Amino acid sequence: MTLSRRVPIVVLLSCLFLCLFNSITYGQTGGEVDFNSIVDVQKYYRALHIMVMLLAGFGFLMAFLRGYGRSALTATFLLVSTAIPMYIFLKSVGFLGARVVDIDLLIMGEFAAASLLIAVGAVLGRLRMHQYIILGLVFIPFYMFSEWILLEGGLGLIPHGGLIDTGGSIVIHAFGALFGVAVAVSMTNKKEMGIELQADATSDRFSLLGSMLLWIFWPSFCAAIVPVEAIPSTVINVILALAGSTLATYVFSIFLRKKILAADIANAALAGGVAIGSTCDTASPGAAMLIGVIAGAISTFGFAIIQVKLQNKLKLIDTCGVSNLHGIPGILGGLSALVVLGNVDYSSQLLGIAIACVVAIVTGLISGKIILFFGTRFVPYQDSEEFLDTEED
Amino acid sequence: MTLSRRVPIVVLLSCLFLCLFNSITYGQTGGEVDFNSIVDVQKYYRALHIMVMLLAGFGFLMAFLRGYGRSALTATFLLVSTAIPMYIFLKSVGFLGARVVDIDLLIMGEFAAASLLIAVGAVLGRLRMHQYIILGLVFIPFYMFSEWILLEGGLGLIPHGGLIDTGGSIVIHAFGALFGVAVAVSMTNKKEMGIELQADATSDRFSLLGSMLLWIFWPSFCAAIVPVEAIPSTVINVILALAGSTLATYVFSIFLRKKILAADIANAALAGGVAIGSTCDTASPGAAMLIGVIAGAISTFGFAIIQVKLQNKLKLIDTCGVSNLHGIPGILGGLSALVVLGNVDYSSQLLGIAIACVVAIVTGLISGKIILFFGTRFVPYQDSEEFLDTEED
Amino acid sequence: MTLSRRVPIVVLLSCLFLCLFNSITYGQTGGEVDFNSIVDVQKYYRALHIMVMLLAGFGFLMAFLRGYGRSALTATFLLVSTAIPMYIFLKSVGFLGARVVDIDLLIMGEFAAASLLIAVGAVLGRLRMHQYIILGLVFIPFYMFSEWILLEGGLGLIPHGGLIDTGGSIVIHAFGALFGVAVAVSMTNKKEMGIELQADATSDRFSLLGSMLLWIFWPSFCAAIVPVEAIPSTVINVILALAGSTLATYVFSIFLRKKILAADIANAALAGGVAIGSTCDTASPGAAMLIGVIAGAISTFGFAIIQVKLQNKLKLIDTCGVSNLHGIPGILGGLSALVVLGNVDYSSQLLGIAIACVVAIVTGLISGKIILFFGTRFVPYQDSEEFLDTEED
Repeated sequence: MTLSRRVPIVVLLSCLFLCLFNSITYGQTGGEVDFNSIVDVQKYYRALHIMVMLLAGFGFLMAFLRGYGRSALTATFLLVSTAIPMYIFLKSVGFLGARVVDIDLLIMGEFAAASLLIAVGAVLGRLRMHQYIILGLVFIPFYMFSEWILLEGGLGLIPHGGLIDTGGSIVIHAFGALFGVAVAVSMTNKKEMGIELQADATSDRFSLLGSMLLWIFWPSFCAAIVPVEAIPSTVINVILALAGSTLATYVFSIFLRKKILAADIANAALAGGVAIGSTCDTASPGAAMLIGVIAGAISTFGFAIIQVKLQNKLKLIDTCGVSNLHGIPGILGGLSALVVLGNVDYSSQLLGIAIACVVAIVTGLISGKIILFFGTRFVPYQDSEEFLDTEED
Repeated sequence: MTLSRRVPIVVLLSCLFLCLFNSITYGQTGGEVDFNSIVDVQKYYRALHIMVMLLAGFGFLMAFLRGYGRSALTATFLLVSTAIPMYIFLKSVGFLGARVVDIDLLIMGEFAAASLLIAVGAVLGRLRMHQYIILGLVFIPFYMFSEWILLEGGLGLIPHGGLIDTGGSIVIHAFGALFGVAVAVSMTNKKEMGIELQADATSDRFSLLGSMLLWIFWPSFCAAIVPVEAIPSTVINVILALAGSTLATYVFSIFLRKKILAADIANAALAGGVAIGSTCDTASPGAAMLIGVIAGAISTFGFAIIQVKLQNKLKLIDTCGVSNLHGIPGILGGLSALVVLGNVDYSSQLLGIAIACVVAIVTGLISGKIILFFGTRFVPYQDSEEFLDTEED
Repeated sequence: MTLSRRVPIVVLLSCLFLCLFNSITYGQTGGEVDFNSIVDVQKYYRALHIMVMLLAGFGFLMAFLRGYGRSALTATFLLVSTAIPMYIFLKSVGFLGARVVDIDLLIMGEFAAASLLIAVGAVLGRLRMHQYIILGLVFIPFYMFSEWILLEGGLGLIPHGGLIDTGGSIVIHAFGALFGVAVAVSMTNKKEMGIELQADATSDRFSLLGSMLLWIFWPSFCAAIVPVEAIPSTVINVILALAGSTLATYVFSIFLRKKILAADIANAALAGGVAIGSTCDTASPGAAMLIGVIAGAISTFGFAIIQVKLQNKLKLIDTCGVSNLHGIPGILGGLSALVVLGNVDYSSQLLGIAIACVVAIVTGLISGKIILFFGTRFVPYQDSEEFLDTEED
């Protein structure tokens, strides 16, 4: 597909999008400064914290590949800029449940963008820029379909409130990870799978920066739409879970590899945040930290043992190891609600997890084939193919 | 000018400043925790978000020049530390409108510091550290004069509220950019203009970090002094405008250059934030995104086409391209109010834009000559001239 | 001490910790959204800002040593993950004053973690990862003992409220710095002291990033547990003090070294934040800036003159110079309360400073000997000994 055909597609889509968008307005505000306005502004701050995670957090965590730093950061910029407006637009025109444009809708759009960035982690370094945008355009409706079934009673499969998943262990993390792996399986040919992508020289500090930003702002992610009075216990639970997974990652990284791998710390330390998602507003402090320790241990095991085996035997590609960071810990989080909480609806919880997995895999396989329409390659991409090299100017 | 003369000047100015400062006290607070205290603390969080933009955002966006990383970051530190206290001091002693020292005054001081950092972007790499401080000392009173005319009815030229510019497209961005370009024209000799400054090897990731931080916290910049109930629609508008300019920058960077330039993404992606400033609290979602797309397209055109032509033909220097990122998109933002809004005072809006441009250019030309009193050079500076080289210790 | 013995110790401690932890629950909330819930959420945002300082701020400020970037960042992760849960656990089971688990307790735990990270700055590059964790486990009870005497009337030495130290100049900064130096003196042998640690090539920009994040979020650190109505004046005081120390650092860095040292800017520019701690909520704007200027000047003098002399003559090691950044400016801050404020209890203030110093030195010396049980070395560590080298994969 040549340049001359590629650019207009994006322009056309953007314009079409904008014209439709122009009919939307903001929900009417009361006009008076009152208690609810204050609560809304507080919610905006959590929305902003999530934006730190989306752009700087995910961006730098993914900027670890040799000759691929600029692409990862640019792709993050483009994916966020595609996903959030698209989600807001589709919801506000009534796709799978109509809503006015407000801070809640912005946060839901950010959740969708987070899930998309997780999915992209599985195929990072295998797509060109315009393919990332197309992946975003395809992903958002599929994600909304899953979210509609799991959280809004869509198709009547799961009653409203039946799935316990406040911080998105299932809806956001597990869905995104499985979708991404399915895209990778669907679009990657065998020849390409043999080629390993390599880390960059100064990458460790940049990816630890991304990891730290995710760690720091994660409590706001989980508490984003939690009622005001439940926020203190929610954020403390998330911090304890992250502390637990960080310590467990250190112990198991040494235990499994003899030496510490900085990439383990940067990734598996976050598994506690993924796993505490489902029960972040209801767990006790001790349970939260325990969930974090288990998630960190499993995730480190995934990075150190499973990922190597899968790449060698099944030739399955998952560039950033999202199945180990978001996939398995996400499902663990969803299951932990069965153990941690007293009065949970077992069948809805298990059915919800199963549906999320099935929808993610099916729609991911479809999306991978769609991506192939827009170009295929036998070797991973390099920044220099798409980016002007400023260093040689 | 020798070292022995330079240092005492700065010390003297600081001390003089401090003595005068000591007479100021804080506005009396009611002493009770009430609704307004809560609103003030929320305003402080937006002030903090703006500080992220000033130091880390502008600092790293400007830290892209080879052998110039430390200077850019140190200059940012010094400029912020000079501008904010000076603005607070001058206002609190009654210069062009007296005010008590409160969070609103802090935010106004941060706006002044933002405009100063924009102006410095035009002369980056051409000044020594003490000249940056002097530029700051000269800039602030000129900025306050412009602000007084445009927003506070100074000289009776524009009625209070006549200029629509909530997020500072005109007052902050266009003023700073034009002032900076005027300083560059006024102080740079022809020989120096021929020398191109070069980008640094690992610079792309650092400047994308700065860019991302600006992008993320921009909504708080525009909503800083907006009434509480208008904050949700304001921040969503800013995010949509930034998303629009990011997508447009990608499309036009490929279209105009064939390949993506990471510096385009880092810079022009922010043009939406600049242009939405004037109408951030009043535009509809669709209009906000459209303004962003147009601003991103024009800004990328500026970086890819105009900047190269100007440097070749007119030998005009603008190191960071602030005219393309803040100048043209800022004026576009001011003009967009004429189209987007219904009941705008056309003559005040156009007069305001014209006054901002004229005052910026005249005071910038004066300031450039003042800077020349404190040293002139025929080649760009290198960090190694002013900084101890830790790498060779 | 071999690997096989080291790992289980950590695992065992973690598990023991978790089991005890499981008995703790959250304080009951009223169940209704009310004014206090809003104030609590605002307090959480300041807790989050402090977390930015702890992980990204301290982490990157300390990541400046050649071959030591990954260790510093990983150690920061592990220390924060150890200190905060341990503090919350000990307080909630009634160690030196019982408390329910709420945001205030989280913030107090973050203060303890900050003091620990300051202490670690003195021995950075001299410990292995498991020794950092052990140092954290030892430090927290000692810190709580000091905090209990100084702020909570423990042992009846200082009446409650007798020590003026809102932002922790004494309790957090001076205590941590002196403890760290005492650990260094106690555990470092003479042979090791002769070996200098070197800065890394791209380190300046990373440590300036850490420094900027500390600078930006420092106002929230000082205002974390200040009453709502005093927050505006507190944060403005902190910003003015930081601006003062930044300008003073520039002037004195040139004055004392002829050229600017980027490490001076990254470190001493923060001394104003340390020194304003004691009086941040009560000083006038002018006094705040003056305290900042004096702190910046003394701190720069410490880095440029004292540190060099101490290393040559006394062979005392303080890797990051925490005595110059946190020790001396912290004590200066504590003393400044005697001058700045009217009705301060002179004897309690002086006694408090003396007790903090004595407890820090004694417990630090003890801790150094404890660390030696877990391994000793004659040369500084390198990342490559403990970390897998991804760059050579």
